[in-house]
Amino acid sequence: MEKIVELGLLYDFYGELLTARQKEILESFILDDLSLSEIGELYSVSRQGVHDMIRRSTVTLRGYEEKLKLVEKFMSIKEKAAQIDSLLRNRQGEDIDKVKEISREILQEL
Amino acid sequence: MEKIVELGLLYDFYGELLTARQKEILESFILDDLSLSEIGELYSVSRQGVHDMIRRSTVTLRGYEEKLKLVEKFMSIKEKAAQIDSLLRNRQGEDIDKVKEISREILQEL
Repeated sequence: MEKIVELGLLYDFYGELLTARQKEILESFILDDLSLSEIGELYSVSRQGVHDMIRRSTVTLRGYEEKLKLVEKFMSIKEKAAQIDSLLRNRQGEDIDKVKEISREILQEL
Repeated sequence: MEKIVELGLLYDFYGELLTARQKEILESFILDDLSLSEIGELYSVSRQGVHDMIRRSTVTLRGYEEKLKLVEKFMSIKEKAAQIDSLLRNRQGEDIDKVKEISREILQEL
């Protein structure tokens, strides 16, 4: 998995367990797509300081996933919901439409 | 939700974040269904000590759910997978059977 995608996923799941400061910095990096230097300027931290904070936060988030495996579980469910949607693509009927709607709801929750 | 059911769910999701000791005691309580006195004897702790440990572990686990809301999310998906299964109950066909199989797989993962 691409590193930034992995970090985004981990942050989605476990971000609330980080400190307020770690969250600010990671959000600037992942969501606002700022560079390390830009983040450093924003929070008056050196570029190297920002780099270290992101590295440490990543280690923390990976530690949670290693123990809980909830991202892995969710990804597997997401794949299954996509399969359901795909299997019913060419089918019609009131029930089937309802099933498609539900499988899309599952996809949106993940 | 019944308290023991809630505790079991929270333990399923976040149990790995507890200490080894907390895990032992909670498993004796939730999975082995031992009484506080029985657990106390097993680990040479007073009945009150066991009670306190379970209470504190419960507070810790609830704290994780308050922040992460992953049990809530999973329960919502579980309900949706059950709806899919139910909607297709009286339908047949190769694709439909596959969809039913997948929705049951989702249910088993949760």
